[in-house]
Amino acid sequence: MDLRPPSVRALLEELEQLPGVGPRTATRLVQHLLRHPSGARRLAAAVAGAAQIVRHCRECFLLAEEERCRLCQDPARDREVICVVEDPLNAWAVEATGEYSGLYHVLGGTLDPLHGVGPDELTVSALVERVKRNVVGEVILATNPTVEGEATAHYLARVLRPTGVRLTRIAFGLPAGGEISYADQVTLTRSLAGRRGMD
Amino acid sequence: MDLRPPSVRALLEELEQLPGVGPRTATRLVQHLLRHPSGARRLAAAVAGAAQIVRHCRECFLLAEEERCRLCQDPARDREVICVVEDPLNAWAVEATGEYSGLYHVLGGTLDPLHGVGPDELTVSALVERVKRNVVGEVILATNPTVEGEATAHYLARVLRPTGVRLTRIAFGLPAGGEISYADQVTLTRSLAGRRGMD
Repeated sequence: MDLRPPSVRALLEELEQLPGVGPRTATRLVQHLLRHPSGARRLAAAVAGAAQIVRHCRECFLLAEEERCRLCQDPARDREVICVVEDPLNAWAVEATGEYSGLYHVLGGTLDPLHGVGPDELTVSALVERVKRNVVGEVILATNPTVEGEATAHYLARVLRPTGVRLTRIAFGLPAGGEISYADQVTLTRSLAGRRGMD
Repeated sequence: MDLRPPSVRALLEELEQLPGVGPRTATRLVQHLLRHPSGARRLAAAVAGAAQIVRHCRECFLLAEEERCRLCQDPARDREVICVVEDPLNAWAVEATGEYSGLYHVLGGTLDPLHGVGPDELTVSALVERVKRNVVGEVILATNPTVEGEATAHYLARVLRPTGVRLTRIAFGLPAGGEISYADQVTLTRSLAGRRGMD
């Protein structure tokens, strides 16, 4: 006999939809949730709340609870620089450095023609419009240093070049705390190619 | 600026309460949930539903949606054998062998005096009552083959011996230090078949 009550089976099925969650992890999560019913209720409310309230900022496509995110509404930010990232998480990471004071633009992924992801599936035209409509001095292309991220950065550079805006790409090289002898050849090649004068 | 909207922060906090979920996994889960709002709503409903409806069977303490679980209500089960397990997952694993036709008793953990878990924190007295009240021919002690599981089995043997019931312990086909719910079905079947009297 299947000893799992229907509601537990339903919960297991939903949990197994999550990335990185297999049957065993789902079972452990169920056990935890049923042992902590008040935590489970808070989790349910948080999931439902976020799913209902969170949207994309209509300007930069960061996650927001209003039409425009708090960053886009912040008069203290430098509106002349836009940092283009693949997803909100990458923007969070850039922001966490505390070194960036401009705005962001979330693409929603990378170009991936083989899987049917073209410029229309991303927020490319909104980015071009944004650059044309506003006084933008620099667009930092901060897509990931992957084949797809590189291709997307090159595509964006091509469509943005006619606007005359300054286009930059984040630097690639060795990660801080890394070991030269452990670095892969592509990283090391880029690190050499991107060398700068010491002063 | 913290780019995460309040509802996203709240969701991250709740997700990080889950076992095995750190900040990075929580962030990935949030990204997945916000990309699949209908799945997120289903998950929220499943968590809330299970947390509300699931209780412990008042007889065997398996997870149930009624006072008594479906297994305890099943006239086809052998009511003279009780398999004592630490938690519902272990009962699910034993049941999945298809080799067991008796009832279960879920302890709710193991004795752990150092952390304040004594017999009163487990369902020990309910088990003793159950054995005294019913015609029970055998109690299979199927706690985990860990130090705590062994100690708990020996304790149970001591308190159940006066009832005159036959006490057995699952065989050590299981690797020591392991977890019943991680065992493959063949190992678990052998372990059930090889159970021996406790003296």
